Amino acid sequence: MTGAPRAGTGTNQEAVRRHNLGTLLRHVHDSGEVSRAELTGRMGLNRSTIAGLVTELDELALIEHASPATGRRSAGRPSAGVRIREDGPYVVAVDLGVDRATVARVGLGGRVFDRATATIPPEPEAWQVGATIAGLVKQVVTTTGPDAALLGIGVAVPGLVRRSDGLIRHAPNLDWHDVSFGSIVLAALSLDVPIALGNDADLGALSEQRRGAAVGVGDLVYISGNVGVGAGVMSGGRRLEGVAGYAGEVGHLYHDPRGGPCHCGSRGCWETVVGAPAIAEALRCSADQVPRLGDILDEMSTAPRELRPIAMDLGRGLAAVVNIFNPSIVILGGYFLPLFRLCRAEVTAGLAERALVPARDSVRLTLPGLGKDSVLLGAAEMALEPVFVDPVASLAGAVTDASARLAG
Amino acid sequence: MTGAPRAGTGTNQEAVRRHNLGTLLRHVHDSGEVSRAELTGRMGLNRSTIAGLVTELDELALIEHASPATGRRSAGRPSAGVRIREDGPYVVAVDLGVDRATVARVGLGGRVFDRATATIPPEPEAWQVGATIAGLVKQVVTTTGPDAALLGIGVAVPGLVRRSDGLIRHAPNLDWHDVSFGSIVLAALSLDVPIALGNDADLGALSEQRRGAAVGVGDLVYISGNVGVGAGVMSGGRRLEGVAGYAGEVGHLYHDPRGGPCHCGSRGCWETVVGAPAIAEALRCSADQVPRLGDILDEMSTAPRELRPIAMDLGRGLAAVVNIFNPSIVILGGYFLPLFRLCRAEVTAGLAERALVPARDSVRLTLPGLGKDSVLLGAAEMALEPVFVDPVASLAGAVTDASARLAG
Repeated sequence: MTGAPRAGTGTNQEAVRRHNLGTLLRHVHDSGEVSRAELTGRMGLNRSTIAGLVTELDELALIEHASPATGRRSAGRPSAGVRIREDGPYVVAVDLGVDRATVARVGLGGRVFDRATATIPPEPEAWQVGATIAGLVKQVVTTTGPDAALLGIGVAVPGLVRRSDGLIRHAPNLDWHDVSFGSIVLAALSLDVPIALGNDADLGALSEQRRGAAVGVGDLVYISGNVGVGAGVMSGGRRLEGVAGYAGEVGHLYHDPRGGPCHCGSRGCWETVVGAPAIAEALRCSADQVPRLGDILDEMSTAPRELRPIAMDLGRGLAAVVNIFNPSIVILGGYFLPLFRLCRAEVTAGLAERALVPARDSVRLTLPGLGKDSVLLGAAEMALEPVFVDPVASLAGAVTDASARLAG
Repeated sequence: MTGAPRAGTGTNQEAVRRHNLGTLLRHVHDSGEVSRAELTGRMGLNRSTIAGLVTELDELALIEHASPATGRRSAGRPSAGVRIREDGPYVVAVDLGVDRATVARVGLGGRVFDRATATIPPEPEAWQVGATIAGLVKQVVTTTGPDAALLGIGVAVPGLVRRSDGLIRHAPNLDWHDVSFGSIVLAALSLDVPIALGNDADLGALSEQRRGAAVGVGDLVYISGNVGVGAGVMSGGRRLEGVAGYAGEVGHLYHDPRGGPCHCGSRGCWETVVGAPAIAEALRCSADQVPRLGDILDEMSTAPRELRPIAMDLGRGLAAVVNIFNPSIVILGGYFLPLFRLCRAEVTAGLAERALVPARDSVRLTLPGLGKDSVLLGAAEMALEPVFVDPVASLAGAVTDASARLAG
């Protein structure tokens, strides 16, 4: 009879210790290098507990000791610091776009070690894309050392992902319905590793809040402007998900009744007016140039006249976003990054035309702090999440010989 | 030196006790009659602690003992129940519409004791409306017994209310900017009592979630369809507020570029197509009939043909709401209540035309559980909120002779 309560208490203590391990690791992940004194203050634990947790994370090869950075030194004796170990475990992040996929190997701390890109053909079959992505994963994983552990894979998807199981319910611009894409990728890799899927804009918002343009901001919207347009929304510090995870589909706001058909099955959606095909048409790009649209826009130093009406319509649609979510920051990602850079006046004018003044007065439009990598790094953050909940369990489920297995 | 820690501990214990008092009161408020056994289970406190809290709330004249309702009796000895005291304290709820104001005296438990209504003239001055509302408040308060305590006043407003201080930043259809309406009402009453202001749709969502069509629902949208159109959104169980409290302004979604000017300063907003003036025009109501529009719609048993295009546009706009918030319930309040009752097929068809299938599959359109009183009762819930945080402090700030003072 005495064994059970003891075991219960022991299990509970173990759960608390793992929670603290994960929380400490997240602090180091978020901040880069942190002193023990800072950790003591942030976590509300005493110095010896912090020292014990640091030792254990060190033994797990997740962090390493560092001399404190000069700028962080507080009064008195400098506190020894810790930082992420570069040769520690990693995740694979996948940014699946409609016309291009980018895959990266990302370590704790958000560091990108390797990346690879491939073109996605029009109206692709899911298994084809799965094979393409598996190839890219092999490229970035086989460059790692033999001992580094693969914690998991995170995939950003341009569509509606069901929160409960990661099923892609609908990706309009890929014409995918009810695709279990996680399983397809794992089958193509012959690997059994945790895989998580999320909506691209939601993941852009996540990484921009964690280490981009919106650190410490509770109410923000990340707009992904690609072939489709979507929003990732944080409200009061929490992600707006909706009942099944589909919230934020602003690309299908009614915008132009004379507008063309949308892949969603409707007409005149905002994304038909401001998405990549509309930008490409305005610039008279041929169909085969559309995948290069980002580069074409990047190379421009001034806006051709044809872009300006699209920028106005970008601003008008953003007005709806601002009226509906009342964010303090709207981050313009994807092709909207160069479009905003080139046509800031038109975007701002479009916003002013339709936003309610109090909501407009509260908001700032801005470029992503992570540039073109917001969505990719958000996919990495999603894949890293379990290691901050329970590092021991996450490492136990990791694949330690991924490099060798995928090279074979 | 020993005094300070003791006082500190005492204060802390007192804070916990007041918190428990408020929480117990909220359970009784939400459920009507509750047994002590249920309270013990819900609050995770032992029977003697519950008994002590019940005694104190009884002494504060907030609740009274009741024999347990038959249906709630659990196995074994029936547990003595408690319920809200009818002669206990009350709040005044104000539903300020663009053409009509309703004021009610509401007790704990959400019971409406008295109500009064007045017409609001077009383009009214805030002080005029304040005087009108003060008159209605007097009507409903002077019928109370001399001992009942007025806890506070809650006002639902058709516009943007700044969360930090309750300032009406913009009420487009009243043409009000930066109006400190709470102060105006209190000055007209010569009373010093807590007054809170909130957006009408937000308050509709609050009351529908607490005791209406969405009890236990985490992701819901309440749409208020009046002269203007707004949304109150709950996501993951929490109100979507935005950084300053202005979130949910769906009435100004771009809907019809051929549409007329909107009071917000823009054109073709959804509310210009589906709001009360559009409905009135379709029904060929004269301007002086518009305040009676609700009654006119209520008296109809079948929809005149002219209403059907408006119902389609209601559904099309709801598609945006569904795509953006992915709620499990959308509650149609205000004039949309009779419109949905009369034209359910058209509203549903409009929704189907533009909503993404996965989001549409997750949602149910429904009528308010509280009928036309959702917003009014939401204003009451807002005014009652402090008594659930700390009943002792709330009663200390109440006005006990409001009836006599307002009659004089």
